[in-house]
Amino acid sequence: MSVSDKTTASAPDGRPARFVPADHSRVEFSGGFWQSWTETVRSVTIPSQHDRLEEEGFLEVLDFGKPPGPLARPIQPSGLSMQHFFDSDFGKWIEAASYTLKAHPDVEIEAKIEAIVEKLEQGQMADGYLNSWFIRREPEKRWTNLRDLHEMYSMGHLLEGAVAYFEATGKRRFLDVMIRAVDHIIDTFGPEPGKLRGYDAHEEIELALVKLYRVTRDPRHLDLAVYFVDERGAMPSYYDEEARKRGENPDDYVYQTYAYSQAHIPVREQTQVVGHAVRAMYLFSAMADLAHENNDPALFAICDRLFDNLTSRQLYVTGGLGPSASNEGFTREYDLPNETAYAETCAAVALGFWGHRMAQIDLDRRFTDSLETVLFNGALSGISRDGQHYFYENVLESHGQNRRWKWHYCPCCPTNIARFITSLGQYFYSARAGELAVHLYGANTAELSVGNAFVRLTQETRYPWDGDIGLRLGLENATPLTVKLRIPGWCLDATIAVNGEPVDLRACVTKGYAYIAREWRDGDEIRLSFDMPVQRLYAHPAASEDSGRVALRRGPVVYCVEETDIGGEPQRLRLPADAVIGTRFDAELLGGAMVLEGEALEADASDWSDSLYRTSPPALVPKPFKAIPYHLWANREPGAMLVWLQEN
Amino acid sequence: MSVSDKTTASAPDGRPARFVPADHSRVEFSGGFWQSWTETVRSVTIPSQHDRLEEEGFLEVLDFGKPPGPLARPIQPSGLSMQHFFDSDFGKWIEAASYTLKAHPDVEIEAKIEAIVEKLEQGQMADGYLNSWFIRREPEKRWTNLRDLHEMYSMGHLLEGAVAYFEATGKRRFLDVMIRAVDHIIDTFGPEPGKLRGYDAHEEIELALVKLYRVTRDPRHLDLAVYFVDERGAMPSYYDEEARKRGENPDDYVYQTYAYSQAHIPVREQTQVVGHAVRAMYLFSAMADLAHENNDPALFAICDRLFDNLTSRQLYVTGGLGPSASNEGFTREYDLPNETAYAETCAAVALGFWGHRMAQIDLDRRFTDSLETVLFNGALSGISRDGQHYFYENVLESHGQNRRWKWHYCPCCPTNIARFITSLGQYFYSARAGELAVHLYGANTAELSVGNAFVRLTQETRYPWDGDIGLRLGLENATPLTVKLRIPGWCLDATIAVNGEPVDLRACVTKGYAYIAREWRDGDEIRLSFDMPVQRLYAHPAASEDSGRVALRRGPVVYCVEETDIGGEPQRLRLPADAVIGTRFDAELLGGAMVLEGEALEADASDWSDSLYRTSPPALVPKPFKAIPYHLWANREPGAMLVWLQEN
Repeated sequence: MSVSDKTTASAPDGRPARFVPADHSRVEFSGGFWQSWTETVRSVTIPSQHDRLEEEGFLEVLDFGKPPGPLARPIQPSGLSMQHFFDSDFGKWIEAASYTLKAHPDVEIEAKIEAIVEKLEQGQMADGYLNSWFIRREPEKRWTNLRDLHEMYSMGHLLEGAVAYFEATGKRRFLDVMIRAVDHIIDTFGPEPGKLRGYDAHEEIELALVKLYRVTRDPRHLDLAVYFVDERGAMPSYYDEEARKRGENPDDYVYQTYAYSQAHIPVREQTQVVGHAVRAMYLFSAMADLAHENNDPALFAICDRLFDNLTSRQLYVTGGLGPSASNEGFTREYDLPNETAYAETCAAVALGFWGHRMAQIDLDRRFTDSLETVLFNGALSGISRDGQHYFYENVLESHGQNRRWKWHYCPCCPTNIARFITSLGQYFYSARAGELAVHLYGANTAELSVGNAFVRLTQETRYPWDGDIGLRLGLENATPLTVKLRIPGWCLDATIAVNGEPVDLRACVTKGYAYIAREWRDGDEIRLSFDMPVQRLYAHPAASEDSGRVALRRGPVVYCVEETDIGGEPQRLRLPADAVIGTRFDAELLGGAMVLEGEALEADASDWSDSLYRTSPPALVPKPFKAIPYHLWANREPGAMLVWLQEN
Repeated sequence: MSVSDKTTASAPDGRPARFVPADHSRVEFSGGFWQSWTETVRSVTIPSQHDRLEEEGFLEVLDFGKPPGPLARPIQPSGLSMQHFFDSDFGKWIEAASYTLKAHPDVEIEAKIEAIVEKLEQGQMADGYLNSWFIRREPEKRWTNLRDLHEMYSMGHLLEGAVAYFEATGKRRFLDVMIRAVDHIIDTFGPEPGKLRGYDAHEEIELALVKLYRVTRDPRHLDLAVYFVDERGAMPSYYDEEARKRGENPDDYVYQTYAYSQAHIPVREQTQVVGHAVRAMYLFSAMADLAHENNDPALFAICDRLFDNLTSRQLYVTGGLGPSASNEGFTREYDLPNETAYAETCAAVALGFWGHRMAQIDLDRRFTDSLETVLFNGALSGISRDGQHYFYENVLESHGQNRRWKWHYCPCCPTNIARFITSLGQYFYSARAGELAVHLYGANTAELSVGNAFVRLTQETRYPWDGDIGLRLGLENATPLTVKLRIPGWCLDATIAVNGEPVDLRACVTKGYAYIAREWRDGDEIRLSFDMPVQRLYAHPAASEDSGRVALRRGPVVYCVEETDIGGEPQRLRLPADAVIGTRFDAELLGGAMVLEGEALEADASDWSDSLYRTSPPALVPKPFKAIPYHLWANREPGAMLVWLQEN
C-alpha cells in the first residue's frame, strides 16, 4: 500500500474522495520542535515501554501454556480488573512501535513484536477467539459481559497493532491472526438471526475495523463496524438483557447510566457529548470514518454537531476533556474544574484522532485547530521530556501534589501518546487528486503523493516558537495543484506569499484554509507569516471555575506558571489587565522553549501578624513571573502550577 | 454532684481552681437563636438517631447471645471495619440523650438507654473487657492492634455516655460497668512490668477518663489518662512492636506515618497540629484537662502553642479544620482548599471542646472565640434545620453536588453535633469562687452556683442577629463578685454599662474579657453593645486558595451565597471592594435569619458567541446577591454555594 494507492481510490459513486493522510514514515522531522520529541519517543519511550510491560507482568498473560498466575490487578466494583485488558496495552505498544519501523528499522523491536505475535497465534482458539483473559481464566464467560469487561476493546487494539505492523513490515501473520478473530466476531455478533445483538461498551474496535477494511477492502469488515455503531443505544438495551442472563439486576449497574458508554440512546440521536471521554472519542472517530466510507452525510452531520458541542461547551483550553474522575468523562456543559481536571491523556490523543478524521472529510480548521491544540498542550503534557514518565490526568492547576508516573496502574495513556507521536507525520499533510492540504506547521521534510504527482515538501520554521514558515516544493515536473494551507484559528493576522508575491487571503480562504491553485514548479516557495502575540484568553462566563481568570496562549501553545520559576505558588499571583508580557527563548529550559515573562502582583504577607484572617485587604506588590509551555510542566522540581491566572 | 460542689473543690496546693462550666440542665434557651435548635435536637434529632441506630443494625452488635450476623461494613485496607466502632456511636448517642434528661425527663429515651446498658452489662467479659466487636467476633484478637482498630476509642465513648447518664439520672449501673472496663484497662496497660505499654491510636478515652475521675476522684482513673498521654509517641513505637507481633511489617502501615495519630513524637515535643483532625482535638482536650488536674503549666503551654498553630495557620474561617479526606486531617500550614475541604463536623465540635477547656484554665477569648466560631458555623453546618440530616464534610464551596445525609456510612458526626447542642448551656457560663465568666451570648435563663452564691442570670438578646445584650442578675443577697464578660474577638467597638453607668473598658479588659468587680444586687443589669457591621475578611496571602477573595462575616456568623438565592452560580459573582452590603432579617428563611444583600457584578454571557474561549474579557454587569448564614446552607434546593467570593 502507498499513499498514492489510497488517494486514487476514489469512491465508485463519484462522491469526492476523502483526503488521505500522508505516510508518516515519509515525513522526517529533522530540526525544529518535533525532532527531539519524535527521536525521544522512538529511541527511549518505545524500548522503555516494552521494559515496563515485561517488568509489570503484562506479557505473562500470553503464556498460554502455563496456568494463570496471581491476578495482577484486583477486581473493581464493576467486575473489571485492569488485567482484563492487558492485551490492549501491548496491542497499542505494537502499533506505536510499528510506526517507527519503516523509517527506522530495528531488529530488536521487530523481534519483540514477533515474540508477542507468536504467543497470540499459539493462544488463539480454534474458532478464532482471541483474548488472553478469557482464554486463560474464564473461557466459559467469554461474550457474557460486553458492558463491563472490555473484551472487544482489547481485540480492537490488537487489530490496530496488526494493521500497523503489516503496513510497516508487509508481514501478514499478525494480520491473519486478527482477521480470524474478526471473522469469529462476525460469526457471533450481528443483526442476523442466531447472532448476539451486542456491542462492546468500550468503543475501540469500530475504528480498528475501518483500518482493517482499508487494508483488506473486505466489506464484511466495514459492515461489522457499521453494525456496532448503529446497534449502539438500541432499546431495550442489550446490556440489560445480558445482565439478566448473568443473573444480575441491570439496575445494579455500577455506572448507573449507559450514557457512560454513549449507549443510552442511538448514536444518531445524540447531540451532547456524554460519558467516558475516551470511549466517546473512539466512537466518534469511527463514526467519522463510516460517514465517509458509506457516503453518509447524516452521520457526518451528527459528528459535526457533537464536535461543536464538545469544543464550545466541554473542552479545556489545553484540549483536555472529560473533567471528572468518577466516570472518567463528561459531567455537565461548562463544568471545567482545573485542579481536579481528569482530562485523561488518552482522551486528548483521541480527540486528535477524531479532529483529524473530520478534517479529511470536511476541510475545516475547526477540526485541525483541536488537533493542534491537543498536540501542543493536553496530549503532549501526558509525556515527560525524558520520554519515560507520564501523566494520566492532565490537571490545569496543582498545589504541588502531582507527579509523573513511571508506569500507571492503568497504563493506557503511555502507549497512546507514543502511537500519536510515532505517527505524527500523517497529521501534517493529506492529499487527494489535485489537492494537497497542509494542516500543521513544524520543521520537516515530507515525500508526498498527490494523485499521480510526487511532491517533496520542505517546511522550514521555528514554529510554534515563531509564526514564520517557509514551504518549498520539490517537483519533477510543473504540476497544477491546489495547495490548501491551514490558517490557525488562534491567528488573527496572517500573510502568505508565493515566490515573494503576496496572496490575497480575503479571496481564497475557505473554512480557515487558504486555497492556492496554480501550476507549481520545482523550488516554488510559500512563505507564511502568522502574527503570534501573547494572547489573553477568557472563558465563557458559564465556565465559572475560570471566572475572573485569564490563560496565556502564544500561537498554539498554552502557558502555565510553575512554582519553581517564581519561588512561590502561582495561585497568589494576580496579573494586571495591562501588564506587558514579553517573550524570550530560553535555550536552557528542557531542550529550549519560548517563555513568557512579565510583572504581576502578589499579596504582601510581610505586614501580616500571625492572624490567619483580617478585615483589611493585603497590599499588592510587584512580583516578576515567568510562564512556560503547559506541556513542559512537572519536568523539574515538584511544585504548584496554574494555567488560569487571576486577573486583577 | 452540683456545680457548687465542683467550684469549691479548689486544689489542695493552692493553685487557682479552674473555672467550672455551668450545669447545662440549668440553662434554658427560651426564646432567641438557640431555642429552636435545642428543641429540635432534643425532640427530633435524639429520637430519630435512635431510629437510625436500629434501622442500620448498630444495636444488633449487642445481641451477645446470638452468633454475629453478616458484617455491616467491609474491612478497609487499614484492617478496620466501621463496625469495629459501632459501640462508639451508641455510646455517643447515650451521652447526647442523657444531656436532655434532667431538664426534660423522658421515660422512652431512658428505657432505650437502659436496654443498651442491659446488653452491655450482659456482654461484658468476666475480666471487665467490653467491646462488642472483639467479644463477639475476634475475642482472641483483643488488644492486638491498638494502631488501627479503635478498641479504646469505642470504650471511651461508652465511658463518656456512662458518666453523662449517671450525672443525669443518678443511676450507677452503666457507670459501674464502665468502671470495671476501666479497671481491666488499668490491669492491662501501663508502665509497670508485665503490662502492655500501649495506647490507642484514636484518642478519646483520655478525656473520658478525666470525666470519670471528676466523678469518682479515683486517682487511678486520672493516672491512666496521664499514662496514655505521656506514653504517646515514645520510641521505639509500640505500634511497630505490635505490628511485628501480628506478623506484619510496620512499614506497610497504610497511613505511613504515626503523625496520623499524633504519635510520631512525644506529645510534649509537638509544635504543629498534624494528622487526623478529630484525634488531635480529642487528645488536646485531654491534655488541657490534665494540665489543670495535675497543675502542669508546661503541658498547658504545649496546648497553647498547638492552639496557636491551629488557629493562625490551619483553621478555616468557618472553624472547620482538617482539609484533607485522605487522612481526615491536616496537611501543610495554610492549605485550606474550599471545594474539597474535609472539615469534618466532629473535628469542629471537638475544637469547641478543646477551646472550652482551655478557657476554663486561662480565661482568654482566643479560646472562646474559636468555640463561638464553630458553634455558629463549621459545627452547626453539620446538622440540617430539620434536625435529621447531616454533613460529615463541611465544604466552603460547592458546585451543587453536595447533599446532606440521612445517616452517614461512618456516622460519628450526627451524635457528636447532638451532644454538643444538648449540653450547650455549659459552654455559656462558668464559675469559680467569686468569679462568674460569661463566654457566649444568646437568649437564655441560667441558674448558676458561684462559690457559695446562687445567681439567676437572664440574658435577653437577639444575638447573633444583633449585638445588644441585656444581662439581669437575680440574687438573694447582695454579693461581691467579679463578672467576666467576653468581648468577642470579631467586635471592634464594644460598650458595656451596669445599671446604665458606662464601664471604662480600657481599664478592665484582660485577654478579651471585661472584668467587672463589685457588689452585685438583685436586679442589677448589664447592658452590652457589640457593634456588628458586615465585615469583609481576607485570608493570609499564604492561604492561596482564598487569594483575591473575600468572606463576609457579621458578628460571629460567617455567610455564604447559595445558587438558589441568586439564580446562578455564586462562583460567577465578583464583589466590588466598595459595594454596600445591607442587612435584613428574613423571617421566612428557615426559621428566620439575618441575611446580607447587595449588588455585585457578574460576567455578562449575552454577548458571547458559541465560543468557549475568546481574547476579550467579558463585560461585568450588576447582579443583586443575597448571602445567608453558612450554617443554613444546603437546607433548600441543591445548588452551588460559595463562602469566599471573588472581590473585584
